[in-house]
Amino acid sequence: MTILITGGIVVTSTGPYPADVLVEGETITALFAPGRAPEIADAQVIDATGKYVIPGGIDAHTHMELPFGGTFASDTFDTGTKAAAFGGTTTIIDFAVQRTGENVHEGLAAWHAKADGECHVDYGFHMIIGGVDDESLTAMDALVESEGISSFKLFMAYPGVFYSDDGQILRAMQKARDNGSMIMMHAENGIAIDVLVQQALARGETDPIYHGITRPAELEAEATRRAISLAKVAQDTPLYIVHLSASEALAAVAEARDAGRNVFAETCPQYLYLTLEDQLGAPGFEGAKWVCSTPLRSRHEPHQRDLWRGLRSNDLAIVSTDHCPFCFKDQKELGLGDFSKIPNGIGGVEHRVDLLYQGVVDGQLSLERWVETIATTPARMFGLYPRKGVIAPGSDADIVLYDPAGRTRISVETHHMNMDHSAYEGYEIAGKVDTVISRGTVVVSGGEYHGRKGHGRYLPRGLSTYLV
Amino acid sequence: MTILITGGIVVTSTGPYPADVLVEGETITALFAPGRAPEIADAQVIDATGKYVIPGGIDAHTHMELPFGGTFASDTFDTGTKAAAFGGTTTIIDFAVQRTGENVHEGLAAWHAKADGECHVDYGFHMIIGGVDDESLTAMDALVESEGISSFKLFMAYPGVFYSDDGQILRAMQKARDNGSMIMMHAENGIAIDVLVQQALARGETDPIYHGITRPAELEAEATRRAISLAKVAQDTPLYIVHLSASEALAAVAEARDAGRNVFAETCPQYLYLTLEDQLGAPGFEGAKWVCSTPLRSRHEPHQRDLWRGLRSNDLAIVSTDHCPFCFKDQKELGLGDFSKIPNGIGGVEHRVDLLYQGVVDGQLSLERWVETIATTPARMFGLYPRKGVIAPGSDADIVLYDPAGRTRISVETHHMNMDHSAYEGYEIAGKVDTVISRGTVVVSGGEYHGRKGHGRYLPRGLSTYLV
Amino acid sequence: MTILITGGIVVTSTGPYPADVLVEGETITALFAPGRAPEIADAQVIDATGKYVIPGGIDAHTHMELPFGGTFASDTFDTGTKAAAFGGTTTIIDFAVQRTGENVHEGLAAWHAKADGECHVDYGFHMIIGGVDDESLTAMDALVESEGISSFKLFMAYPGVFYSDDGQILRAMQKARDNGSMIMMHAENGIAIDVLVQQALARGETDPIYHGITRPAELEAEATRRAISLAKVAQDTPLYIVHLSASEALAAVAEARDAGRNVFAETCPQYLYLTLEDQLGAPGFEGAKWVCSTPLRSRHEPHQRDLWRGLRSNDLAIVSTDHCPFCFKDQKELGLGDFSKIPNGIGGVEHRVDLLYQGVVDGQLSLERWVETIATTPARMFGLYPRKGVIAPGSDADIVLYDPAGRTRISVETHHMNMDHSAYEGYEIAGKVDTVISRGTVVVSGGEYHGRKGHGRYLPRGLSTYLV
Amino acid sequence: MTILITGGIVVTSTGPYPADVLVEGETITALFAPGRAPEIADAQVIDATGKYVIPGGIDAHTHMELPFGGTFASDTFDTGTKAAAFGGTTTIIDFAVQRTGENVHEGLAAWHAKADGECHVDYGFHMIIGGVDDESLTAMDALVESEGISSFKLFMAYPGVFYSDDGQILRAMQKARDNGSMIMMHAENGIAIDVLVQQALARGETDPIYHGITRPAELEAEATRRAISLAKVAQDTPLYIVHLSASEALAAVAEARDAGRNVFAETCPQYLYLTLEDQLGAPGFEGAKWVCSTPLRSRHEPHQRDLWRGLRSNDLAIVSTDHCPFCFKDQKELGLGDFSKIPNGIGGVEHRVDLLYQGVVDGQLSLERWVETIATTPARMFGLYPRKGVIAPGSDADIVLYDPAGRTRISVETHHMNMDHSAYEGYEIAGKVDTVISRGTVVVSGGEYHGRKGHGRYLPRGLSTYLV
Repeated sequence: MTILITGGIVVTSTGPYPADVLVEGETITALFAPGRAPEIADAQVIDATGKYVIPGGIDAHTHMELPFGGTFASDTFDTGTKAAAFGGTTTIIDFAVQRTGENVHEGLAAWHAKADGECHVDYGFHMIIGGVDDESLTAMDALVESEGISSFKLFMAYPGVFYSDDGQILRAMQKARDNGSMIMMHAENGIAIDVLVQQALARGETDPIYHGITRPAELEAEATRRAISLAKVAQDTPLYIVHLSASEALAAVAEARDAGRNVFAETCPQYLYLTLEDQLGAPGFEGAKWVCSTPLRSRHEPHQRDLWRGLRSNDLAIVSTDHCPFCFKDQKELGLGDFSKIPNGIGGVEHRVDLLYQGVVDGQLSLERWVETIATTPARMFGLYPRKGVIAPGSDADIVLYDPAGRTRISVETHHMNMDHSAYEGYEIAGKVDTVISRGTVVVSGGEYHGRKGHGRYLPRGLSTYLV
Repeated sequence: MTILITGGIVVTSTGPYPADVLVEGETITALFAPGRAPEIADAQVIDATGKYVIPGGIDAHTHMELPFGGTFASDTFDTGTKAAAFGGTTTIIDFAVQRTGENVHEGLAAWHAKADGECHVDYGFHMIIGGVDDESLTAMDALVESEGISSFKLFMAYPGVFYSDDGQILRAMQKARDNGSMIMMHAENGIAIDVLVQQALARGETDPIYHGITRPAELEAEATRRAISLAKVAQDTPLYIVHLSASEALAAVAEARDAGRNVFAETCPQYLYLTLEDQLGAPGFEGAKWVCSTPLRSRHEPHQRDLWRGLRSNDLAIVSTDHCPFCFKDQKELGLGDFSKIPNGIGGVEHRVDLLYQGVVDGQLSLERWVETIATTPARMFGLYPRKGVIAPGSDADIVLYDPAGRTRISVETHHMNMDHSAYEGYEIAGKVDTVISRGTVVVSGGEYHGRKGHGRYLPRGLSTYLV
Repeated sequence: MTILITGGIVVTSTGPYPADVLVEGETITALFAPGRAPEIADAQVIDATGKYVIPGGIDAHTHMELPFGGTFASDTFDTGTKAAAFGGTTTIIDFAVQRTGENVHEGLAAWHAKADGECHVDYGFHMIIGGVDDESLTAMDALVESEGISSFKLFMAYPGVFYSDDGQILRAMQKARDNGSMIMMHAENGIAIDVLVQQALARGETDPIYHGITRPAELEAEATRRAISLAKVAQDTPLYIVHLSASEALAAVAEARDAGRNVFAETCPQYLYLTLEDQLGAPGFEGAKWVCSTPLRSRHEPHQRDLWRGLRSNDLAIVSTDHCPFCFKDQKELGLGDFSKIPNGIGGVEHRVDLLYQGVVDGQLSLERWVETIATTPARMFGLYPRKGVIAPGSDADIVLYDPAGRTRISVETHHMNMDHSAYEGYEIAGKVDTVISRGTVVVSGGEYHGRKGHGRYLPRGLSTYLV
Repeated sequence: MTILITGGIVVTSTGPYPADVLVEGETITALFAPGRAPEIADAQVIDATGKYVIPGGIDAHTHMELPFGGTFASDTFDTGTKAAAFGGTTTIIDFAVQRTGENVHEGLAAWHAKADGECHVDYGFHMIIGGVDDESLTAMDALVESEGISSFKLFMAYPGVFYSDDGQILRAMQKARDNGSMIMMHAENGIAIDVLVQQALARGETDPIYHGITRPAELEAEATRRAISLAKVAQDTPLYIVHLSASEALAAVAEARDAGRNVFAETCPQYLYLTLEDQLGAPGFEGAKWVCSTPLRSRHEPHQRDLWRGLRSNDLAIVSTDHCPFCFKDQKELGLGDFSKIPNGIGGVEHRVDLLYQGVVDGQLSLERWVETIATTPARMFGLYPRKGVIAPGSDADIVLYDPAGRTRISVETHHMNMDHSAYEGYEIAGKVDTVISRGTVVVSGGEYHGRKGHGRYLPRGLSTYLV
C-alpha cells in the first residue's frame, strides 16, 4: 500500500513547510519539496491542499477500563482507542496497574490481556507501582529491560489504594535513576486531603464542588515541591508531574527547570478550559461529571492563564488527557450524597488535538508548539521517537491531515467515547481532523471510520530521549 | 548539479534519524528513509556513513571589518566568511552600523558595499542603531519592509559611541513592537563602567585584566534587568540579549522567560571556555588577546556551569561568536599601558560548531540541542526559517557532514581567519567538520576549499518565528 | 520644669507596658512601674489613664518651602512644623538642596537660613546632591564630619533638575561607603518617563491622571533594582529608597534584604490610602491635588495590600510623608492643560501619626509596629537614637499621649498646614493626638497650641545605627 | 531587698543607652537617667560601669531529663537550670512530652513533677504532642486556657516515636489557629531519612558522620516547605521552625516571611559554629558527641554564612540551644557500631549568651540584635513579654551584667552542665557573664553561685505577641 500526500503543509515542532509525504507500507519513506515527488504507480494520492500534515497525536496518559471506586472506566481499549483515532490520536500510553499487595508482573499481564487484539491504534504502557518494596523494585528493572516499559507512576494521593509514602517514593526514584527510567507522579498530599474531606463530609458538605474545595491548590503545590525534593535526593532522577493544574505547582516546576533539573510536567485540556465554579459547581449533582483529581481550579485565580503560559514557555512539556471516563448514570451517581465516592475522571481522549488547536486559533499557542506538545515531545519523553511523533522518513506513518478551515462541534451526540455525557458539551473548535492514518492505514477519512479493532499494536518503549 | 548524501544520520533539534538527502541545484528536494532513494542519474553520491548530517551553522553575531577604537576588525567579509565555511557555518548575520550622527540608510549602504560580491557563504544584516531619533525610527520601518532587516541592535554600553539612553531605547522598542522586529541589546551599564574604568586607570591599573574587573557581572545583570523592564513598558517588545556572560544576567532572563515574556539570549563560546584569570589575566600584555565586552568572567564564580545549564534549559537560545577579530600586533597593542584603548573583540567564527560539539562530547549538551543552538534557533529567531537552519525538503542545501570520529586541533597555524593568534590556541575537539555544502555547492571537503568569493548572497530576512 | 505622666501605657517597638514617665527640663529622667513614682514637688502631673504614651513622631521626609516647578512648597518651616506638632510629630528631617550647578555648602546655608528660628519642633537636614562632582563629593565628607548631616539624597528622576546619572550615583555611593553615610534614592527612571510624558502630551492626554499613567510601576521597580545594583557595586553602601509605592519595587527591596543587604525603604500614607483612579483620576483638574512622584498607584493592582504587608514584615522600615504641599489655586493650577507642569507634592505632615494609627485599628499593623515605623526606626536609621524615637531615661522628652478612644476628622477646615485643600478630606480616624510634648514643653494639649516658633532646634545627626 | 545598678549601659533591642536600674523585691521598679537616681536607703548598689545591662537570657528550647533512645538527657532540671544561670540565662522553656499512646495531661503532670522545686531559674513548658487525635486536640485547648501552655511541638521526623503524619499536623494546626497558640515544628522528612539510614547501615556506614550524611539539607528544606504549606492550608496558623540548620530551609522561611506569613524560625549555636566535617566527622567514634538532629552541616556549603545573615535580617528570630545533653560514656556509646542508636543531642544551655556575644565581637551581629535574639524575641514569641525579655519598669528583675572586657573559656573542666565533655571545648569568648540576677536575687556574681534550687518558678505563658 502506497500513499502520496500532496500539497499540504507539514508542521514540525520548529515550524511549518510545504512538502509531499510518501508512505509505503507502514512507514514514511520520503518527503519531497513541492512538485518534486516522482510519479509512483499504484499510489493513492491524497490531496492535502490547505491542510496541515502533522504527526499523529500521542496521548501519554489514558486509563481504559481502569478499576476505580468500585467500578471501571467506561471506555474499553476497543472503544477508547477508536475514539482516539477519530480525534487524531494514533498512539496512547495507558497505565498497567500494580495495586498494593499485588504483583507487578501479574498486573502487567492483566493489562496486556485487556488490550491485546482490542486496540485501533498503537499503544504502550506505563506501570503504576502501588506497592514499592523489594519485589516491585526488582520488577522495575525487568520491565525496563524486557517489557518496553520505561516509566513508572507513583501516587502521593489515595492513601490505602495507590499511595506511596516518601520512603517508598525515594526508593523507587533511586531505582529509576539506576535503570534510566522515569518516575511519573500524581502530586497531591493525599494524607492532608483526606482530613479535609472527612471534615467537609462531617459538616454536611457533600456536593461535587467540595471535591475541589477539599483538594486545594496549595496541597498540589506542596506535593509537587516534595516530589522534586525527593528526586533531588535520589541524585536527580528524572521526574514527570502528571495532570498539573495549579499555578503554584507550575511555579515549583519552573524553578526546578531553571536550575537545570530533569523535571517535566503535563497538563490536560480540562485544566485549560474548565473551572471549579463553572463545571464542578454546576447545580445539584451535575458537577459530578467533572470530578477528577487533581481537580478543576477556581476561575478567580490565574491558573488557566498560567497553564497556557507554561505551555508556551515549555515549563509544561506535554498535554495529555488523563482520559478516565465514567458514565453519569450508575457510575458518577455512586457518589450521590457523598462526593468522596464519585469515581474520579474525565473523558477526553477524542478531543485533545482539537482543543489544543483551538489554543492556536485563540493565540495561546503557536502552530509549532501545538504539534510539539501533542505529539513530538510525548514521543521523545517516553522513548518512542523517532518512530512516533514526527513526520520524517523512516518514521511510522502515523499522520493526521488537519483542516484549519473545518469546524468541530463537541457533543455526546456525536462523540465516539463510551460516555453518556461530554465534559465539553457544545464546545466549538475552529478546525477539524480531516484524515487520520495509522501505520500507513487510513483509519478516518471524510468523517467515516475505516480502521479496525486489532490494528493497534503494543509499543515496547525505550528510555526517554528528552533529558537535559 | 545533483547530490545524494547517503548513509548518514540526520540530526534535527528533536533528535537524530538515519536518512538520505537529495540536493538538486541549490535546494534540498527530498529526504529518503535509508535504502529508499531511487537511482538518480548524474548525481554525485556522498557517502555519509558514520557522520552526522546537520544544517549548516548560522552565526547570528559577527562583525567583519567593524571600525572600533581607531582600527578595523581584521577579517573582511571575504576572509571571515571563508573561515566560517571552513568551520561549518554557512550563514552569518553581520551588523550594519549607524553611528551617532550618521544616517541609517547610508550606514546600511556602506555595509552592503563592503559585503557585496565578497562573501563565501550567505549573509544577512542586523542594523546597529547608534542614534535613536525621529529619522532613525522611521528608517527602522523602511528596513523591515523593504530591506530584509528585522532586528536592531542597541547599546547600553559605550557612551559617546553606540550608546543609547533609556529614553532612546524605549522609543526604539516601541517602534519594534509596532513593526514586528526585534531589539538586540548589548546589556552593560556603560555609564557606571566608565566611572570604574577611570578610577582604575587613575590608580595605575592599566593591564588587560582590569578591562574585566571594571566591568563587573553585576553591571551586566543590571543592564539586562533594565532592558527587560523597558521592553515590558514598551508593551512586551521581543528582546534579545547578546553575548550574555554572567550568571546573574542569566537569572534575569530566566525570570522573564518564566513569566512568559519574549526575552531571549545568546552566549558565545568564549564565555563557555575562557576565564578572566586564565586568559584575560595572562602575564604582561598577553591578556589583550581576550579583551572583549562583555568580558570573560571569573573562574571562581559559577558562570560557565550556569551558562551550559542555560543552554540546556533554553534560557540561552543561541550560541553566536560575536566574531570581532583584531590582530595582537598593531591592533590589540593600541592599548599598551591603557586597557581601555585595547580594541574589544575575539575572533571565533571558524570554531563555533566545533567548540559546541565538544560540549556534546563532554556531556554538557545533547546532540539535538547542539543543532538547535547553532543552526535551527538562529534561523527561527531571525526570520530565515525554513529556508535555513533545517534539513528539510525545500530548504536551502546548506549542509554539514560532521565526523564524530574526527579530531580538530585549533591553532593560529591552521585557522583561516585573518588573525595573528588564536583565542583557543591548542584546543583539541573530539570531532571534525568533514564536508560543507552551501546552497548546493560543496565548498569544503577533505580539508580542501572548493568555494569562491561571491558565492555568498545577501539574505533578506523576515520577522522572527520564534516568539511565544 | 518637671512633668510626671501617670497612668498611661508606654508603647515601645517591642510592646506596651504600664509606666509613669518623669520629665525634668528637656529630658526624660525616669520611668517608674505604676505606683512606684515618688512624690515630686512642683511637678505638673498629667493623667494619661487610658492613653498610649509614645515617643514623638519623626517624619524623615519633608520639603518645607521647596522650590519646584516655578513655585515653592506652601508650608514654611514655621507653618509646617506647627502642623507637624499638632499631628504628634516632634521631629522632622527636611532636605537642604544643592541643585545642579550650585554649591553644596551654600545650599545647606540657604536652608539653615530658612529654618533657623522658625521651627516649632526639632529638625534635621538630609542633603540633596543635585550635581555629583569632585567638589560635591568632598562636601559630603565635610557635612558628615562637621554639619551633622549623614544622609544624601539622589534622584534617578527629573532629568535636568535633580537627576544624577548612574556614574554620578556610583561615585556618591562610593563616597557614602567611605564616610559611613547613607544614600537616599528617588527611584524612578526619569529618562524613560520623560519619553512617555512627551508622547502622552503629544496625544493630547493632559489631565492629571496621565501624570500617573506615564510613571508606570515598572519604571519605579526598574530604578529601584538599578539603585540596589549600583549600591552592590559600591561595595554594599547602605541604600534607602524613598516613597516606595509599587509592589514590584517592594519585591526588589525584599529580595535584597533577604540577601542580607543594607537596603531600606519608606512608604508614605498616600500610597497606603489613595489611588490613581479614586484621587488622581478625579473629574476635571481636581486630580491635580494628588499629583506627586512616585505617583498614586492603581486600585486594580495589589499595591496597597503589599505595602501594608511590607510594613508588617519590615521590608518597609519607615513611614514618612514626603510632605510637599502646594495650594490648588495658583500652584497646582500651573499645570492646567499640561499635567507635567503641575507641581509635584502632597501635604500630610500633620496626619501621619493618625493615618498609621488607623492601620492599627484596621488590623493592618500592631501597636508596636506603629511606634516603630513612625518614630523608633526613623531615629535609628538617621542617627538620632536614643536621643529621639524612644521613651527612655536620658532621651529628649518628645512625648505624645495618644487617645485610642478619641476621634480625628481630617479636613481643610481644621488642619494647620498652609494648604487650601486636604488630600484626606473627610477621613475619620478612630484615635486622637491628645497631648504633645516637645523637649519637655507641652506644645499641644486639649486641642490648643502652647508652643512657639523658634522652640525647635537643629539636630546634628550621627551615623545610622540601623545597619545590619 | 532593693538593688540599684548604676553606671551601666542598658541594651535593648533597639539600641544601648546609659541608665541606672532600680530593683525592688522581684521587680524592676524604675529606670533613671545617669545620675538621676535618688538616694535609696538600704539599697545594694551594684556598680555596672563598663558593663552591659541586659535582660536575662531566655532559652526557648531545652530538654532536661528527656527520655531518648533508651536513656535520659543527662541534665536534670536542677543541674540544667543552674548551668543556665551561670551562663546568663534566667528563663528556660522546656518541653513536656506526650508520646504516642500517652495522655497529654498525664505527660504534663509528669514534667511538672520533674521540675517542681528543682529549678534555679524560672521555667515554662511547651508541650510535645506525639499523638494527634481527638483527645489530644481537646487537651490543647485546655492547656492554652488553664495551664499556661501556648505552644505545641510536632515532629516530621522520628517515625514511630514522636512523628505526626501530615493529616495529624494539619489537624493540630487548625486547632492552634482556633485557640491562638503556636505550632513548633521539627522539620525533617523522617520517612525518607529512615530509608537513607537503613541503606547506609546496610552498606556498613556506621560511623557518627553518617548520621549527618543520611539527613541531607534537602530533606530539612522539604519538610520546612511542607510545614509552611500545611500552615497555609490551616488558614495561616503561626508556625515556628525549631533548630533550623540549612540554607535551603532558611530560604523557604524567608520566602514565607516576604509573603507576610507568620512563619518564624530559631537556630542554635551549634549550627553557627560547628560542622559536619570538623566535629561530627571527628576520628573514630568521637563524632558521637555532636550527633544531633537536625545535624551539623557541611563546611563546604554556605550554611553558617547564611544562618548569621538570617539572624541579622530576622528571617531567624531566635537563638535557642536545643540543650539535650548526653554523656559520651555509656550514653553516646550506645551507638557504637550503629550511628542510628546514638542519642541525639548537644548540651549548650550554659554557653548561648556567650557564643552569641562572640558573634557581636566578630561583626556578625549588632549589640541590639544580640539582646533581641537571646531574650526579647523569645519573650514576645512565647507569651512572656513584658514580664521577661526586657529591662523595663514593672518587668521581672531578670538581669545580666555582661562584661565586654572579660573573657570566657569554655571547657568540660569548668562548665556546670552534667556532661563529661563539652561540644565547644576550648572555645574562647571575648566577653563574660559578670552578674546574674533572677527575679531580684543575685544568683551569680564574681564567678560564685548564690542561687538555690527551688528559686525558679513555673511560668504560665500567654499567647504570642510577636505575630504580624
